[in-house]
Amino acid sequence: MAFDIVGSDIYLPETKWSDKDFDLYLGLKKGTSKRQFGVETRHVAANHETAIYMAAKAALGALKNASLTINDIDLLVYASASHHQALPYDAAAVLARLNAPVNLASLDINSSCLSFLTALDYAQCIFLAKRHQRILIVSSELVTGITLNKTTPAKTEVATLFSDGAAAYVLQAASNASGFTGALFETHHQGYDFCQVKAGGSHVNPHHTAPEQLLAASQFEMDGKALFRHMTTTLPAFLVRGLQQSNIQRDQIDYLLPHQASHLALKRLPKMSGFCSQKIVNNVAQCGNQIAASLPINLHLLRQQQANSGKKVLLIGSAAGLSLGMGFLTL
Amino acid sequence: MAFDIVGSDIYLPETKWSDKDFDLYLGLKKGTSKRQFGVETRHVAANHETAIYMAAKAALGALKNASLTINDIDLLVYASASHHQALPYDAAAVLARLNAPVNLASLDINSSCLSFLTALDYAQCIFLAKRHQRILIVSSELVTGITLNKTTPAKTEVATLFSDGAAAYVLQAASNASGFTGALFETHHQGYDFCQVKAGGSHVNPHHTAPEQLLAASQFEMDGKALFRHMTTTLPAFLVRGLQQSNIQRDQIDYLLPHQASHLALKRLPKMSGFCSQKIVNNVAQCGNQIAASLPINLHLLRQQQANSGKKVLLIGSAAGLSLGMGFLTL
Repeated sequence: MAFDIVGSDIYLPETKWSDKDFDLYLGLKKGTSKRQFGVETRHVAANHETAIYMAAKAALGALKNASLTINDIDLLVYASASHHQALPYDAAAVLARLNAPVNLASLDINSSCLSFLTALDYAQCIFLAKRHQRILIVSSELVTGITLNKTTPAKTEVATLFSDGAAAYVLQAASNASGFTGALFETHHQGYDFCQVKAGGSHVNPHHTAPEQLLAASQFEMDGKALFRHMTTTLPAFLVRGLQQSNIQRDQIDYLLPHQASHLALKRLPKMSGFCSQKIVNNVAQCGNQIAASLPINLHLLRQQQANSGKKVLLIGSAAGLSLGMGFLTL
Repeated sequence: MAFDIVGSDIYLPETKWSDKDFDLYLGLKKGTSKRQFGVETRHVAANHETAIYMAAKAALGALKNASLTINDIDLLVYASASHHQALPYDAAAVLARLNAPVNLASLDINSSCLSFLTALDYAQCIFLAKRHQRILIVSSELVTGITLNKTTPAKTEVATLFSDGAAAYVLQAASNASGFTGALFETHHQGYDFCQVKAGGSHVNPHHTAPEQLLAASQFEMDGKALFRHMTTTLPAFLVRGLQQSNIQRDQIDYLLPHQASHLALKRLPKMSGFCSQKIVNNVAQCGNQIAASLPINLHLLRQQQANSGKKVLLIGSAAGLSLGMGFLTL
């Protein structure tokens, strides 16, 4: 007993910024965003496109794709790194937005950029334990509100990296389906400082912090070099451990779907992973890093191609924490 | 196959405020905090007692109580409503604070005040699915930093209600243990607005919000009357549904352990639940509402009494969202 994916959809903000828009906004020499940071386009949410708006749009699309309604769902999991607000949790906000006529169970899961993978691992356990029949997972990330602002500008590598968007999946119990297998997660807390937004919780108390310091602490801080160095050192061995534990051979894998961490990370991935670039899903130029929504958005794009039905996908990624995660799905 | 609780511990801030302290701080007539809001004491975290500090202290205590170390744990779940910071997720911060020498898996779970119950339900599925052998669940809440401040004061009923603290549990797979059974969760999103902290995420963008508005949005807002009315209407039927589904009779239950929502809620619970007050755990006068840490802190206090070994506890509560949850544990 595990699950089938019976529906999925994505929501991408209508406004797209080109590399030229970034050059202009950031005061960069023409061509810099494209050449140095690999930008073609980034989705930037408008005011009405809140994280919950995007999540609800993707959820409705995934339910429609599955020919189901919210009444058929037992559990809603909101799997994202960024929050809509501090309280209540965001899954409840999605149900309120959908005006769900049923009182299904709901919760948020957060393991930064790996939140969707962690939710799949959770779902797998739920189906194996026969706890629920249908689960709706939603990942939604709105990050350009802080990375693109003039009052406390982000570093250029941060400002050009992120993009907004949401994805949703309907999973259904199936006795003969394998679901999400070979899951492996590791926390390398030595890299805790590499990616941070220090405000937003009790650590930086807004009542005891000067406004300009609070804005600085609300910005996305990234030590790209340290992060990249850690990944180069640890990812190859992590991948080997995961493959060994799951007893899956490299040549059985049709697609390597990595978290779209950065232009540079994706460029180096063939060498780091030992997979040829034809097998590696790379949309970082068009979509950037959409935090926890990156993996499910790109998985949906694979699912949309009929020829991919039955193909085996290895999902893998790193996350602020620092964490590594991987696991297998059949399309 | 499910789990045994093999260790637990709590951390309560050293500073305690008495009802007299609240009367003085809030400028209330002598005796008001005690008479109207049922305050005897509240734990108030000092500057060094961050959410992660308290979480790590409780985690170390629970591991010691289980005669284990962090090296024996497969998965750390941080189950809390409030965040330490926006990014990374808080379980990674606890592992960094513990300086864990192993790269175990970790994640945050959030269903507001029911986060610990949701984590128990997750753990139950993990053990039934034979995914992990040992799980460490930590709940830590630091809320007085916003509810007790002079710049943007909370309403009196909010300021006198909350208290800080943390709890941690070590769960271990056991083939002949029942673990957490009869779990039932419902989201009543009609009450989404009843308890809110609107800032802290992408909803209230600090870059587009005036400082004083941001502070107001960082305050805990509660419509106590609406919340209480909803609970009075829905809790009795929810309890009946849960008991029916789990096939457990009222007289099999030794303790009803409710979320310590408020003085008033606990006072009315015997009538609402049909359980006599002797069976209902009520520490709200001494500890207040410690958000997601309330249930595990009070469960630990029950566990500490040797005479309670083998006793059956029904955990039940409501959470911002609005959500209801319940489930059974054997001490």
